[in-house]
Amino acid sequence: MTDFGEDDFFVASLKAVILNINPRARIVDISHQVQSFDIRSAAFILSSCYKFFPAKTIFLTVVDPGVGSLRRILLVETENYFFIAPDNGLLSFVLEREDFPKIREVKNPRFFLPQPSRTFEGRDKMAPVAAWLSKGLACSEFGPQTSDYLKLEIQKPQRRKDEIIGSILYIDKFGNMITNIPGEMVFGQGKGHLSLLVGRKEVSSFQETFSSAKKGELFFLIGSLDLVEIAAREASASTKLKAGTGDEVRIRIRR
Amino acid sequence: MTDFGEDDFFVASLKAVILNINPRARIVDISHQVQSFDIRSAAFILSSCYKFFPAKTIFLTVVDPGVGSLRRILLVETENYFFIAPDNGLLSFVLEREDFPKIREVKNPRFFLPQPSRTFEGRDKMAPVAAWLSKGLACSEFGPQTSDYLKLEIQKPQRRKDEIIGSILYIDKFGNMITNIPGEMVFGQGKGHLSLLVGRKEVSSFQETFSSAKKGELFFLIGSLDLVEIAAREASASTKLKAGTGDEVRIRIRR
Amino acid sequence: MTDFGEDDFFVASLKAVILNINPRARIVDISHQVQSFDIRSAAFILSSCYKFFPAKTIFLTVVDPGVGSLRRILLVETENYFFIAPDNGLLSFVLEREDFPKIREVKNPRFFLPQPSRTFEGRDKMAPVAAWLSKGLACSEFGPQTSDYLKLEIQKPQRRKDEIIGSILYIDKFGNMITNIPGEMVFGQGKGHLSLLVGRKEVSSFQETFSSAKKGELFFLIGSLDLVEIAAREASASTKLKAGTGDEVRIRIRR
Repeated sequence: MTDFGEDDFFVASLKAVILNINPRARIVDISHQVQSFDIRSAAFILSSCYKFFPAKTIFLTVVDPGVGSLRRILLVETENYFFIAPDNGLLSFVLEREDFPKIREVKNPRFFLPQPSRTFEGRDKMAPVAAWLSKGLACSEFGPQTSDYLKLEIQKPQRRKDEIIGSILYIDKFGNMITNIPGEMVFGQGKGHLSLLVGRKEVSSFQETFSSAKKGELFFLIGSLDLVEIAAREASASTKLKAGTGDEVRIRIRR
Repeated sequence: MTDFGEDDFFVASLKAVILNINPRARIVDISHQVQSFDIRSAAFILSSCYKFFPAKTIFLTVVDPGVGSLRRILLVETENYFFIAPDNGLLSFVLEREDFPKIREVKNPRFFLPQPSRTFEGRDKMAPVAAWLSKGLACSEFGPQTSDYLKLEIQKPQRRKDEIIGSILYIDKFGNMITNIPGEMVFGQGKGHLSLLVGRKEVSSFQETFSSAKKGELFFLIGSLDLVEIAAREASASTKLKAGTGDEVRIRIRR
Repeated sequence: MTDFGEDDFFVASLKAVILNINPRARIVDISHQVQSFDIRSAAFILSSCYKFFPAKTIFLTVVDPGVGSLRRILLVETENYFFIAPDNGLLSFVLEREDFPKIREVKNPRFFLPQPSRTFEGRDKMAPVAAWLSKGLACSEFGPQTSDYLKLEIQKPQRRKDEIIGSILYIDKFGNMITNIPGEMVFGQGKGHLSLLVGRKEVSSFQETFSSAKKGELFFLIGSLDLVEIAAREASASTKLKAGTGDEVRIRIRR
C-alpha cells in the first residue's frame, strides 16, 4: 500500500526491487490511491483488510511525507503478520488491535540497495527489506528492538446517557461514511429507536443492508467492518450530507 | 471485476480471502473501475475479454447494488469457464454467447466466511466460493441447479432496407463508441457507400484502422471486437459527438 | 505498460492472451495510466524503472497511436532484458542507455493470434509474442534484425558559463517536476550557491530531501533518478509554478 498513485514508475520500482531479490514473491496490491501524505486514511485502510490475508503476509506500506528525515523505518512482527512502514503513525490502527507486537527499527544497511537515495526509501530500503524477509530471514537481522513508536491520536466513541458520540473515520469510493462507532454499541437498541446526527443533519433511517433502503435514501447501518456507516442507496452519503472525515456523529437512542 | 474502485480496502479484501483459502490461486484484475452499480457496462466488459482467458478460468464479478437482499448468487459453468456473480444481469452478454451453461444458485454456507456480513457478500460469500472452486471442488458442492436467471434487455441491431439501426453499447477510455452492430453486417458494403448517423450528426468517413484517419477526424470502423465503433483519431469521438451509451446509431448504405 | 487505462477490457485482454499461452508467466504492471498517445512520457516511465527488474524480464509496452499502420513492431534484446514495442520512439530513452541492443522487426505471423485485428495489435500481436518469448523461444524466431528505429528527439542539458540549461521531462503524481539535468552537473556546487529558474520564476532553495523543506516551500533537489527535480513540500510544484513538460529550466551558479 502506498500513496504513489498508479500513473508513474514508483509502484513498479518497488515490485521490481522485490522480484529481483525474491523472484518467487507473491505481490498483492492493497491500494496505491491513498491521498498523498494521508497517513490516517492509510492506517485505516490497512487495518480494514489485513486480517483477511494469509498468515505470514508481509505488509509493505509506504505513505511517507518524512522520507529522508530522521524518522525511523519500523519492522513489526505480530502473531500472524509482518509490517514494514515509516514510523509516522501508519501502523496505529493495526497496533491497537495486535497483542504483544515485536517492534524493530530497520537499520542494517546490508539489506538496502547500494547508495540508497534520500527521496525514495520505499524503493531503496523498505522494498528490499520486505523481499529479504520474504526469503525467510529472521527479523532480528534487520535491526534492534524498540518499544516506542509514533501513534496517531485515535478518538474513541463515547456513551453519554442516551447518546453515542463518535466521528467519521473514512469515506469510501461509494461515498459511504464509516464511523468509529462499533456495531455492538448500537446493536440490540431496536431499529425504530435510533436516529443519527451528522452536524445538524438528521438521518433517521436505520437499515440492515444497502438494498433495503429506497433509491437515494439516506440511512445508517452496521457495515462490513462492524462499524456504523452512513450511506445512501446507490448515491453518495458524503455528497448529500456535505460531511467529511473527522466530523462528529451522534446517535440518539429514544426509549 | 468489480465496481469497487482501487482507492479502498475492498478489492484487497477479496484477494486476501482468496489467497487465504488457496495460496496458489493466480489472480488477474479485469477492471475495478466499472461505474458504481453499472451492471450493463460490467456485463459488456466481461463479455469483451473472457474468451481470451485460459480454459478453467474462474470469473469473480461483483457489481452488486442488491447486496444483502434476496437476489441470489449464481455459479455458472460453461464449456471452458466458471462465473460467479450476483443474479442481476451481470452475466447477460456472456450467457448469450455460451451454449448449455449449467447455472447454480450458491447456497451452501459451508463455503462462506463465518458470520457473513449483509453488506459485503463479495468478500464473505463470493470470494471464498471462487477460492474453493479454484481448489478443484465440484460445482455441485455449492448449491442446486437452477434454470432461470435475470437477463438484461439486449437490443439487437436491425436491418431495414438500406439502413442498419443499432445503438451505442459502451464508451471506452479513449472516447471510442462501441456499437452493437457486428462488422459482418457492414463488411463488404464498400467503403465509399456507407455513412453513419448518431442522432442528427453524420460521420461519413469509414476507415480500416485508427491511423488511416487524419488527426481529430471522426470516422467509424470495425473494431477489435468485430463491432462497428465510432472513433476520432487521437481524440474522443464521444466528446465530439456528445453521445452516450444507449444512443441510436444508423448506418446508411448508398447504392 | 500501456495507455489503456484500467477502466475497460484492454489490459485484461493482454494478460489473458499471455496466460493462455504461458500460464506460468509472472505479470507485473508498470502503469496503464500513461496519458493517451503520450509516447514521450511512456518512454520516460519505462526508462525510470526497467533497471530494477530481474534479468530476463520482458517489457511489453503499448502506447500506439499508429496501430494498424505500416509502423513496425520491434523486439529488442539487450544485455539483461527484452522489449516489445511499436516502432514509434517508445524505446528511445532505454536504447540511449543500452549498449549493443539487438533490434528485430516482429513479423512472423505464426506467433500472432489468428486473424489479428488492425485496431488492437497489443492483444493480437504483441502480447502473444511476449508470451511465446517468455516460454524460452529465441528472438530470431520472431523476425529479422534491423538497425534503424524511430528515436524521439532528446534534449540534452547544456552548460554555458555559470548556467546549466535544461528542461522538464516529466511531472509525477505529487506534482514534482523531473528535469533532464543530471545530479552530477550540480552536485558539489555548494548549496547556497545555486538557484533555479523555471520561466521567470525563481526557486532559490536547494534541499537534500523533501522533508528538509518547510510545508508548501518550493525547492529543488537531486531526486531518486539522479536528476534535478523541482518540488514543494507536501504540495504540487507543478501547480505552484504553472509549468509543464518541455518547459525550460535554468540553474545559476553564483560564485
